Amino acid sequence: MSMTRYILQILCPDQKGLIAGTTQVLAKAGANIIDLQQHTAKDIETFFLRAVFDIEADGIPEVKRHLETIAPHLQLNWKLFDTSKTERVAIFVSKTDHCLYDLLLKRRDGDLPCEFSCIVGNHPDLGPVGGSFGVPFYYVPSNPDKTIPENRFREIIEETKTDTIVLARYMQILTAQFTEEFKYRIINIHHGFLPAFKGAKPYHQAWHKGVKIIGATAHFATEDLDQGPIICQDIQRVPETASIDELVELGKDIEKRTLSQALKLWLEHRVFVHAGRTFIL
Amino acid sequence: MSMTRYILQILCPDQKGLIAGTTQVLAKAGANIIDLQQHTAKDIETFFLRAVFDIEADGIPEVKRHLETIAPHLQLNWKLFDTSKTERVAIFVSKTDHCLYDLLLKRRDGDLPCEFSCIVGNHPDLGPVGGSFGVPFYYVPSNPDKTIPENRFREIIEETKTDTIVLARYMQILTAQFTEEFKYRIINIHHGFLPAFKGAKPYHQAWHKGVKIIGATAHFATEDLDQGPIICQDIQRVPETASIDELVELGKDIEKRTLSQALKLWLEHRVFVHAGRTFIL
Amino acid sequence: MSMTRYILQILCPDQKGLIAGTTQVLAKAGANIIDLQQHTAKDIETFFLRAVFDIEADGIPEVKRHLETIAPHLQLNWKLFDTSKTERVAIFVSKTDHCLYDLLLKRRDGDLPCEFSCIVGNHPDLGPVGGSFGVPFYYVPSNPDKTIPENRFREIIEETKTDTIVLARYMQILTAQFTEEFKYRIINIHHGFLPAFKGAKPYHQAWHKGVKIIGATAHFATEDLDQGPIICQDIQRVPETASIDELVELGKDIEKRTLSQALKLWLEHRVFVHAGRTFIL
Amino acid sequence: MSMTRYILQILCPDQKGLIAGTTQVLAKAGANIIDLQQHTAKDIETFFLRAVFDIEADGIPEVKRHLETIAPHLQLNWKLFDTSKTERVAIFVSKTDHCLYDLLLKRRDGDLPCEFSCIVGNHPDLGPVGGSFGVPFYYVPSNPDKTIPENRFREIIEETKTDTIVLARYMQILTAQFTEEFKYRIINIHHGFLPAFKGAKPYHQAWHKGVKIIGATAHFATEDLDQGPIICQDIQRVPETASIDELVELGKDIEKRTLSQALKLWLEHRVFVHAGRTFIL
Repeated sequence: MSMTRYILQILCPDQKGLIAGTTQVLAKAGANIIDLQQHTAKDIETFFLRAVFDIEADGIPEVKRHLETIAPHLQLNWKLFDTSKTERVAIFVSKTDHCLYDLLLKRRDGDLPCEFSCIVGNHPDLGPVGGSFGVPFYYVPSNPDKTIPENRFREIIEETKTDTIVLARYMQILTAQFTEEFKYRIINIHHGFLPAFKGAKPYHQAWHKGVKIIGATAHFATEDLDQGPIICQDIQRVPETASIDELVELGKDIEKRTLSQALKLWLEHRVFVHAGRTFIL
Repeated sequence: MSMTRYILQILCPDQKGLIAGTTQVLAKAGANIIDLQQHTAKDIETFFLRAVFDIEADGIPEVKRHLETIAPHLQLNWKLFDTSKTERVAIFVSKTDHCLYDLLLKRRDGDLPCEFSCIVGNHPDLGPVGGSFGVPFYYVPSNPDKTIPENRFREIIEETKTDTIVLARYMQILTAQFTEEFKYRIINIHHGFLPAFKGAKPYHQAWHKGVKIIGATAHFATEDLDQGPIICQDIQRVPETASIDELVELGKDIEKRTLSQALKLWLEHRVFVHAGRTFIL
Repeated sequence: MSMTRYILQILCPDQKGLIAGTTQVLAKAGANIIDLQQHTAKDIETFFLRAVFDIEADGIPEVKRHLETIAPHLQLNWKLFDTSKTERVAIFVSKTDHCLYDLLLKRRDGDLPCEFSCIVGNHPDLGPVGGSFGVPFYYVPSNPDKTIPENRFREIIEETKTDTIVLARYMQILTAQFTEEFKYRIINIHHGFLPAFKGAKPYHQAWHKGVKIIGATAHFATEDLDQGPIICQDIQRVPETASIDELVELGKDIEKRTLSQALKLWLEHRVFVHAGRTFIL
Repeated sequence: MSMTRYILQILCPDQKGLIAGTTQVLAKAGANIIDLQQHTAKDIETFFLRAVFDIEADGIPEVKRHLETIAPHLQLNWKLFDTSKTERVAIFVSKTDHCLYDLLLKRRDGDLPCEFSCIVGNHPDLGPVGGSFGVPFYYVPSNPDKTIPENRFREIIEETKTDTIVLARYMQILTAQFTEEFKYRIINIHHGFLPAFKGAKPYHQAWHKGVKIIGATAHFATEDLDQGPIICQDIQRVPETASIDELVELGKDIEKRTLSQALKLWLEHRVFVHAGRTFIL
């Protein structure tokens, strides 16, 4: 029988014997552990484990049964991901394309293990880019009544079997209802070093404060704008003589590499959300 | 006659011919320009110039006369610094010594062109460090009535002919009256990447937000705590598994190098304050 | 009469009065200096100046006449660039496209002040990319006799009025004759942190040495492979668990931003070559 | 019975079931695993594991017995460290003290889990620094016949029960015999970004090549100077206008933080040496 690669995530209160216990569950079911990261956040007495393992198909029910058995006692949160099922990711855009290109090129180069299910734009401008990479483009114009585009989003997500949404410089605010419905499934790039510069025009804010370093932050979209758990961040030193426009330009490189990196961490199932923040393993 | 090195700072509304005009003033007075930086901040139409030049002593009155003549017409703010007069810097401390040691060692190695006029501590603990570097230590205990220590500070500043104060992890808040009196003459190190984490325990705040990069900010102390113009900043990437204590430890290296760097920029007369921020030339 | 923006580069042995002298030449000819950087490399007693200025068309002959007059006496090397004449840049590629896309996208966003005159590939693969950005693509297959493709390059360079060549991961070695003919007009990206890892497979070399940081280097192509003057460099920290393939992937982001940055510095006439290295102003 | 904290390092050819097998050995002996890192370097099919665990004293013989049993079959290299036994570290210096101070201060702040057994200097200059931190100083002058100081080193190492030697800007070359005798027990700081600038005056070399980024490298001292396995590296961007002296100054901060960081990784038993390089877990 052929082997399939799975990833197991475990999150629970810290206690004795968690690693040995978990690895035994896997060993008994015939799994071969390829890679294992584990971390105990002592400040909040919480345990995180990520294990990558190969297993024959009929071993998986056994793994699940064991985990279900021990879960209540150990207050175990666990998730199991079958890596042979490719994650389907929708990209939401407006008019700016540097993040879009970076995602499409990185995936084509084999650096992002996903399919792009669709590109959704509130402007038609970036349609041709989708075309040249063979990704269907949906034009969904903005509307003062946000339920109109968001209902269309729901249809598209269903039609295209989308698992995760990436907001690649999508300049519309989503409703609390929508972000709640797709909680921790929407990744946004904020063109500022959160939590420093929330809201609009962060580069303008940064320039007027005379900050010496700018950054970008990829985070989960939540109701409270720009407050969702941070997935990754990157920075760049600001030349003292930079104008606001030059800050914006500098920011683009940081934005695109931060967003691609966040999506990659997510697709590799390295991201845990707990106590209002992420832990990346 | 022997030459003395001077530094000229000019700040004014942008207009035609400023560089040619200024360099001619210096050339006519027999100055030899060694180094010149100039920047026009187009977003606010403001011109900044820093010139380092050698001149015979009797040329300086002529330079001043010329600058005074053209200043009203061009709305020129100018300052002239005689580099043969060593700046005298007081270091304020509490119990933590990593910044103190870094300053003392860098000065001794010739990397900070100043004299340390005194160390002032609200605890007696760091007195011996001052002793081992030959810098007088003043123990000025805190007091609920802040005017009592601050009046003592004024006496010490006068006695020790102090020009600039560096708060090297000094854990007391200064009054608005005091910071106003020594405006842009007090440099503070904030153990956070301002403006992200104002106030107390920034590393705790950062950890609970799950930030991926931490930083430190050297800035002028102003009435509005941690809001003064930023002089320099530095950052360090956070290992995902770092505890709060490890963040604090990581922060120390950033703090000390950022504070020393800020003092150096200040002593080299590279710092301009304008429109609520600094411009470093 | 309308104003044109020019850039003046000066390089000469250090001596008194160079800045005042130069700015007077410009002032007399009616130029308005917008931006001026100057640096004296004391270790080699050499002076560098870059001035950006606006001038009426009939002022330029006067500037030239003055510079020619003072040049012999001061051993002045000077160059004058008319920024209204757009630089024409050829991009040489093989099969890898991350640098190519970054250049095309940055130019389209207005971040690179040039025209791309053509794309030259020793494989036909990237032709369509050129097409989608409206840049003509020339397929020039490799040949054991390098004079064959290089003669074709000369024709293309002439036909397309190319000023500068960018080797965007072009995997063929140019002859000494060719690099000498286009000396300091060919910019290469080396996928390693020169001078650490010269020659082939730098990421393999880096992995086997266990380096903790990788980098990329943009430099002028010279006969002595990977030894030409460095224009800019960037780095990225290596995750300890990275495989060779992951190093290669990490490297791509550094390569593309380093090459685009080098081209930008070049197009802004900030690059001086002297004593076997560059000085960037 | 009280618990003691141990660290287990395992290095072996990659094969099935290594993590489960190892954690079971520990579990059976009553150990509580606190922290576990594991990595398979696929490029060389090698497995690395580091486990931190608490155990009662009488469990350790059982752990050892099990490991000895499985070792030959699995080609297991394993090491067991009792963290209650504090590592004793000697610091070798010449005249420069920035690295020495950084080590002493970091240890005093609790950031380096070791005792400094002694300071050894080939000049007497830094004796007083040792005194002020309560670390004995040994003055061992250089000698053309290197066996004379090195025999004295051997005596001091024995007297002071030294486990590890840190060369904190110690400017003498050790013999092949000596480095071989203390293989992977001597940590050196090289004031250059190895392997770029081996040998003398790396900052001079770097300046003349016009490098844009400088770095420092902490590595094990081996016979082949500056070629030992790299433990950690750090870098700093070079201001374009920096002189050679300014490069040297910039380098000091990088050197001291890189050396302290390397010692810390070593003391935490995170460093594996294999196939000519390190792997840090």
